[in-house]
Amino acid sequence: MRSTMQGTPLTVASILRHGVEVHGDRRVITATGDGFRRSTYEQVGRRCGQLANALRRLGIAGDDRVATFQWNNQEHLEAYAAVPAMGAVLHTLNIRLSAEQIRFIAGHAEDKAVIVDSSLVPLLARVLPGLDTVKVVLVTGDDGDLAPLEGSGKAVLRYEDVLGAESPEFAWTDADEDAGAAMCYTSGTTGDPKGVVYSHRSLYLHSMAACTGNGLGIAEQDRILPIVPMFHANAWGLPYAALMAGAELLMPDRFMQAAPLARMVHTERPTVAGAVPTIWNDVLLDTEKDAGLDFSSLRLVVCGGSAVPRSLMEAFENRLGVTILQAWGMTETSPMASVARPAVTAGPADAWRMRATQGRPVCGVEMRIVGDDGTPQPRDGQAVGELEVRGPWVTGSYYQVDDDARFHDGWLRTGDVGHISAEGFLTLTDRMKDVIKSGGEWISSVELESALAGHPDVFEAAVIAAPDERWQERPLAAVVLREGAIVSPGELRSWLSDKLPRWWLPERWTFVEEIPRTSVGKFDKKVLRGDYADGRLKVETLE
Amino acid sequence: MRSTMQGTPLTVASILRHGVEVHGDRRVITATGDGFRRSTYEQVGRRCGQLANALRRLGIAGDDRVATFQWNNQEHLEAYAAVPAMGAVLHTLNIRLSAEQIRFIAGHAEDKAVIVDSSLVPLLARVLPGLDTVKVVLVTGDDGDLAPLEGSGKAVLRYEDVLGAESPEFAWTDADEDAGAAMCYTSGTTGDPKGVVYSHRSLYLHSMAACTGNGLGIAEQDRILPIVPMFHANAWGLPYAALMAGAELLMPDRFMQAAPLARMVHTERPTVAGAVPTIWNDVLLDTEKDAGLDFSSLRLVVCGGSAVPRSLMEAFENRLGVTILQAWGMTETSPMASVARPAVTAGPADAWRMRATQGRPVCGVEMRIVGDDGTPQPRDGQAVGELEVRGPWVTGSYYQVDDDARFHDGWLRTGDVGHISAEGFLTLTDRMKDVIKSGGEWISSVELESALAGHPDVFEAAVIAAPDERWQERPLAAVVLREGAIVSPGELRSWLSDKLPRWWLPERWTFVEEIPRTSVGKFDKKVLRGDYADGRLKVETLE
Repeated sequence: MRSTMQGTPLTVASILRHGVEVHGDRRVITATGDGFRRSTYEQVGRRCGQLANALRRLGIAGDDRVATFQWNNQEHLEAYAAVPAMGAVLHTLNIRLSAEQIRFIAGHAEDKAVIVDSSLVPLLARVLPGLDTVKVVLVTGDDGDLAPLEGSGKAVLRYEDVLGAESPEFAWTDADEDAGAAMCYTSGTTGDPKGVVYSHRSLYLHSMAACTGNGLGIAEQDRILPIVPMFHANAWGLPYAALMAGAELLMPDRFMQAAPLARMVHTERPTVAGAVPTIWNDVLLDTEKDAGLDFSSLRLVVCGGSAVPRSLMEAFENRLGVTILQAWGMTETSPMASVARPAVTAGPADAWRMRATQGRPVCGVEMRIVGDDGTPQPRDGQAVGELEVRGPWVTGSYYQVDDDARFHDGWLRTGDVGHISAEGFLTLTDRMKDVIKSGGEWISSVELESALAGHPDVFEAAVIAAPDERWQERPLAAVVLREGAIVSPGELRSWLSDKLPRWWLPERWTFVEEIPRTSVGKFDKKVLRGDYADGRLKVETLE
Repeated sequence: MRSTMQGTPLTVASILRHGVEVHGDRRVITATGDGFRRSTYEQVGRRCGQLANALRRLGIAGDDRVATFQWNNQEHLEAYAAVPAMGAVLHTLNIRLSAEQIRFIAGHAEDKAVIVDSSLVPLLARVLPGLDTVKVVLVTGDDGDLAPLEGSGKAVLRYEDVLGAESPEFAWTDADEDAGAAMCYTSGTTGDPKGVVYSHRSLYLHSMAACTGNGLGIAEQDRILPIVPMFHANAWGLPYAALMAGAELLMPDRFMQAAPLARMVHTERPTVAGAVPTIWNDVLLDTEKDAGLDFSSLRLVVCGGSAVPRSLMEAFENRLGVTILQAWGMTETSPMASVARPAVTAGPADAWRMRATQGRPVCGVEMRIVGDDGTPQPRDGQAVGELEVRGPWVTGSYYQVDDDARFHDGWLRTGDVGHISAEGFLTLTDRMKDVIKSGGEWISSVELESALAGHPDVFEAAVIAAPDERWQERPLAAVVLREGAIVSPGELRSWLSDKLPRWWLPERWTFVEEIPRTSVGKFDKKVLRGDYADGRLKVETLE
């Protein structure tokens, strides 16, 4: 029996139309270094029309890919909305990747055009000649020298000039909702980057999920500050969710240091902000320097990308009165898959325990833990295995790459290891490739890192597997101390001793200036393991 | 370019799985008259498995229709979840319809089974022999006599006995999301009732929309009291949204009078409740009798089904500290289409003006006003015409009936007349069939009724078109006074005179004991017009 419902597709065009028609007076506010520039969604909608007309005129047709090489700003939002809504495919290039990776990714995606911020022209200029498929470059921002892009054989145009010549009217495409709308490449630490192609449907549903009360509860009264970059997993979906809800967007542009971010919170009063833990750590330090900063507008700070230390959550709660909400996801999951809201029925102690996990799946996403033999494990908080996920905004393949090993009966194998409690909370203990197996048992590097980060002298810590004759592997802790702090490995080890099983405690310790990171800011443990293997770390071993 | 996303369908089965697995300890609480019975979603999930196994054993296969003849209670929720999740189609029968209408509807839908509450056995018994397609009747509740159903030639079984014999395990169907999941007939005042078939997709998306911050913001911490019947437009989607969010459900069962409802609010502390204005009017009267009733748990009272008088909203706000939120929709729109949350930027006066409208569309629904010539009208708060809507949870046809006149270029013609403001707020001024056209201009019966309801002596009022020699039509006001109140037509007319255009003010007045209502509780103006035409109303005419 067929339903009688209309077949209206879920599209980015309909998100854009809704934001502009129903919430046209809500604003997008972009940092300029010495102030802010402000536009309404109504104005953004008109500029989206101009951008779509310009891209058509410049030859963008069908599902051509339009890349962005951009900070979080109004123009990036315009590309987010206009490119998919005209039927083309948005490709967010990660500005932090190596020239070689960018060339590979832009070539693999066959990008036809690039929208670049003028401050990033020098960075793009290094790779542009090698981007064979790119025909057009649009440069946003009216300062900056275009000379570095010349001689690349591409048409190089100023974004504002091009838009100024166009009509704001455009007949947005109510595309097939399963068509590609946007793509993003994962920057795997091994092998070539792999592309994920989001559909109109997946972006729409993910945005709705972000607006639900059990998600982030985004609504018109919100003012959203996405610090997580828009070139990284859709800035966790915050821009589309804000447009859908008519929430205001506060865009930090290239002013991503702790001091301007803290000032932006103080003056522009966001209600929701999203960034990785490192950023919040830095912001917290900044607020220590300036006690006058007012963070009271924040009802929620979303934090993810790596495990959030409980000490960071407590410091935000106690010092700033701000709740950090841990969320988990990956490029392959759009990314919001789970949110660590404690169960409503939990008491204070249980609530903290739940907040320290990766959370419960939002409706739409299903999760399971699978053992070495491929069978789903019980939800008992004990059985450890690889996390698998499925749902309408979870990828089922990679763009033009066969990688069947990453999928299992229609579920995505996440490469993360952990367990799920009887209450449904996911705890990730490691990446598959970072696990430490000592005498046949798993030791969680993530839990060791989180416990170490709670020590008052520790800024951050990474724990890796060190080969060991007797136990096969033992944990090695690489610790970054706070400025001026002095503490011995023995003291850190005894700090851990009442928090974790005795046999988890590392014997091998090293103090480092910083933890090596990947292009998206995660600990790069492969580099750390290499440094250790090659004897580049000064390691102290406790008995 | 195809996306790489998984093709996971949006289904009632996945709502059920999510509610049970992630929010298994949240409860469904059903009134028993002298108390409440309580179950968890985990228990409801097991009973859903038993129900599905039982229905299979009783011959329900494929897309067979399973009807309910039920109050709002746990067993009705079990049918809501289990019937679509097993791949069958839920058909909610309206217990308030005439025997003839029920026979027509159950026959047209070809219902195979009916799940009936024991208190409604006598009502069902009157029509059961004529329900040719029905083979099985399951009776919920352990009191009550089954004798009236015997001799109908149907298998009559007790629900609890049948469930008790079954396993709670059932392999839920991840159906095609466009397949029919549930159906509901509109009780048109003219012609045969017409069926709307909701899809898994439409129910899923509608539930998500109810959970968004701009919708009703339903989340795990909520306790939802659906007073609007589950046989009427899915109880506005509250049951599915609650299950999706893990919100608790407070079910009034058959205890639908103002006094037990008010007590349920007092003792069970719902955060959200939904009912038509009449119910809230009655509840308000009840709270006047008992000042000790505590309504402070309610963060939101959703109100719709007919225009909500501002006086009612103000009384709730001032006397009980409770916000009434007007929402608009119809059976054909699942039903939530718009919600009258004031714009965030509005000052207090504008906010009240916006709250008195039918609101702005929730994301997913699009609205337009179409003139007599079929062209979309400007959004200027002035241009009046028929409201048309579209979206993924709006019907595009009726079940096995050709009624092309109700659709226009893929939009549903709602039969409602009104205008949309520049800020996007919809104001409905009349049903097409109830419009009053005086000297070529529209007079809004809805605005007249709302203004009259604000008079302290008026309980409620209905305004209809009276044929008039000079003006073609003039408004006639039928007024129900509060107990013991005495007021003259002249006084009521002068009450209106500073609130509405002079030429709108009715000359014809009648005082009645009650306004005739349709089976779903709306004013039945057809009956009122007939009473007037046939001289059954005692009308006083002012000069």
